[in-house]
Amino acid sequence: MEVFDPAELWSRERIEETQLVRLKNTVGQARKCDFYRQRLDEAGIGPDSLRSLDDLRRIPFTTKEDLRTQYPTGMLSVPQTEIVRMHCSSGTTGSPVAICHTQNDINSWADLMARCMHMVGVRREDVFQNMSGYGLFTGGLGIHFGAERLGCLTIPAGAGNSRRQIKLAKDFRTTVAHILPSYALILGEHLRNMGEDPREFPLRVALVGAEPYTEEFRRRIEGLFDMKAYNSYGLSEMNGPGVAFECLEQSGMHLWEDAYIPEIIDPETCQPVPDGEVGELVMTCLCRQGMPILRYRTRDLTRFIPGECGCGRLHRRMDRILGRSDDMFIIKGVNVYPMQVEQVIMTFPEVGQSYLILLENDGIGDVMRVQVEVRDEFFVEDMRALQNLQKSIAQRLRDEILITPKVELVQSNSLPRTEGKAVRLQDLRAKK
Amino acid sequence: MEVFDPAELWSRERIEETQLVRLKNTVGQARKCDFYRQRLDEAGIGPDSLRSLDDLRRIPFTTKEDLRTQYPTGMLSVPQTEIVRMHCSSGTTGSPVAICHTQNDINSWADLMARCMHMVGVRREDVFQNMSGYGLFTGGLGIHFGAERLGCLTIPAGAGNSRRQIKLAKDFRTTVAHILPSYALILGEHLRNMGEDPREFPLRVALVGAEPYTEEFRRRIEGLFDMKAYNSYGLSEMNGPGVAFECLEQSGMHLWEDAYIPEIIDPETCQPVPDGEVGELVMTCLCRQGMPILRYRTRDLTRFIPGECGCGRLHRRMDRILGRSDDMFIIKGVNVYPMQVEQVIMTFPEVGQSYLILLENDGIGDVMRVQVEVRDEFFVEDMRALQNLQKSIAQRLRDEILITPKVELVQSNSLPRTEGKAVRLQDLRAKK
Repeated sequence: MEVFDPAELWSRERIEETQLVRLKNTVGQARKCDFYRQRLDEAGIGPDSLRSLDDLRRIPFTTKEDLRTQYPTGMLSVPQTEIVRMHCSSGTTGSPVAICHTQNDINSWADLMARCMHMVGVRREDVFQNMSGYGLFTGGLGIHFGAERLGCLTIPAGAGNSRRQIKLAKDFRTTVAHILPSYALILGEHLRNMGEDPREFPLRVALVGAEPYTEEFRRRIEGLFDMKAYNSYGLSEMNGPGVAFECLEQSGMHLWEDAYIPEIIDPETCQPVPDGEVGELVMTCLCRQGMPILRYRTRDLTRFIPGECGCGRLHRRMDRILGRSDDMFIIKGVNVYPMQVEQVIMTFPEVGQSYLILLENDGIGDVMRVQVEVRDEFFVEDMRALQNLQKSIAQRLRDEILITPKVELVQSNSLPRTEGKAVRLQDLRAKK
Repeated sequence: MEVFDPAELWSRERIEETQLVRLKNTVGQARKCDFYRQRLDEAGIGPDSLRSLDDLRRIPFTTKEDLRTQYPTGMLSVPQTEIVRMHCSSGTTGSPVAICHTQNDINSWADLMARCMHMVGVRREDVFQNMSGYGLFTGGLGIHFGAERLGCLTIPAGAGNSRRQIKLAKDFRTTVAHILPSYALILGEHLRNMGEDPREFPLRVALVGAEPYTEEFRRRIEGLFDMKAYNSYGLSEMNGPGVAFECLEQSGMHLWEDAYIPEIIDPETCQPVPDGEVGELVMTCLCRQGMPILRYRTRDLTRFIPGECGCGRLHRRMDRILGRSDDMFIIKGVNVYPMQVEQVIMTFPEVGQSYLILLENDGIGDVMRVQVEVRDEFFVEDMRALQNLQKSIAQRLRDEILITPKVELVQSNSLPRTEGKAVRLQDLRAKK
């Protein structure tokens, strides 16, 4: 198999040996900033404390709140003169988070991104159009540098302006694009309005990230353009794009374990969850000098996909993001994420636009009710069909979340919405 | 003197020797594309035709129209797989122009840009905030790559969002910014509205380009922020920013003659104008592989500033852009640019917002009239003061444009405007 970086094909032993070496280096590097030195000292972790990868769990978590508190430069592990780039969250919720990179950090980020693109068959012969905004958002410069590193003809088209996107893609025969799934639909619509068949469009690969979207939606945009769409995962705290990426198998995103140590934990107990179970992704970067971050709680919910990937790469795979751990609720001792419920009920073709999870206490214990809108054409007087649907949904939910909720079928558009957005969860239990 | 690139201090001999070597290479490289091979063959210029720099004049001009005709990839001198970046004009007038770069082209562009910033005292210790839009516009990625090359902490802030610009600049103590002059004024206003003194702002250097603005305006924004503002010249056909830049002397922009051959010609006769006279800038790039461009007619009007610069660099200096050659008119055999008229009359404090140049034929010959708005406070009944003003303006105009126009003083806001924009020139002469 042709790979961009030999590390893609490393054995588990080689991956884990390297992780331990790099973890030690990274902890040593992190100790150069006051914040981590103090925190590691408090946890009793000295320069030589890490004997095995299991010792990682002794390192305290880093939270977004920590990064905010240390803004702008409290987390630097190098003199500020070594920094050549800063990326910054929009800071829409609270104060911003700034991530600073040395030239080496920028280079290894570009290499990781190039590796992702190479993995899905992108080569220097390709024309790559970056339909992402640039500036402080890492999806612009992050993917741009990766594409140039790979040697693609890179078109920094930026976001929006469909007419120009289409003109450039046709004129330069763009084969690969970084695009939001919702924008792919808009572009396809635009082409059809121009009387053209989007399948004739030169695009053959789309890199897709940044926006939650379903597998069904992926298949839809793939069919629309007769192309392949590959999921990408990244977050600015871990550079940005290039953290995890799908291979040609399209069955989960390989986390680059030579550059990161991923963990998936129960957000309540902070203990690791078994492979295949949903939990919060925690990430440690292994190749960063400017601002190494240890055990970062991403708040993103996902799961490791068990088993080996058909592509032969042994870097573990993560599922797409299933929600935010802040949305999790606990019922009868079980952690449940609204996205788990959504994923189950949306597999039923009879189900409409919206659903509502109601948590109540009937005096004896907690009760979970799920109200599900049913499409008009299925909401008929055939009571037996509706009862069967109700039963099927309840069973499938139990298989997924381990408790059996009361399922109630309701008519389209009968569930509450606030400002056009559906309300997904109402917790009516008395706060204890 | 500490320089980024030793080429900054080359003697004229060294510069010109290098130009000849590189010109030969560039012509050889250009011949790899059909367009140039054909055009050079037609002009009888073979691989060995160039014996001295004077032979440059035998090479045909390249126009924007040529670039449009060859869009998208007709001008490539390398296989398309060698290209890693494309920048593209907005194409607001006619079809777009696409400029394609190899990795080497991107690197040498970044070096040139870093050289410009280094020349005005920017160092890796500086924090650089790029307040320019990114994407296809070269002012974003072009200056970004230069700043990173220099090792500055580079903040890709992008355009607009004053509140965020100010927050970032204060939090990171931004010392250098790439900013539009008009936006500098807006930022200053914003700070004052926040009750702050813009002079307390950490900014000490502004890189200014892209927008025509006067020397008076420069001094105004310099005073506003207690900083230095340096003019930059670039155009995407010659990479983008990094073509010419002011040194600490602030008396004209050094054209990097190891990377370009600049000429200034009469746009009518296409012959070189004497040093110090205004004409159209023509540029040949010497360091480009992907898409070398020979004798490009920029349509930008400027002049070589005669004499040697106080900084000791012998790369010739160009004046700021004085207009577009498309705006030029000819009267009594003399080429005149509206900007020349504007520059003269705006030195008079009595002159208001607008002026109008009228070209007429009185049956005997061409007549040039200049109507000038006078500020209300000067438009008094003191006829003698007004007559003196009229006479002074006429004399100063004759000194500049070599013919004596009829000057007419008019009241504020009496001259015609279309959609808020002032009309500067009306040519009422019968077309011959």
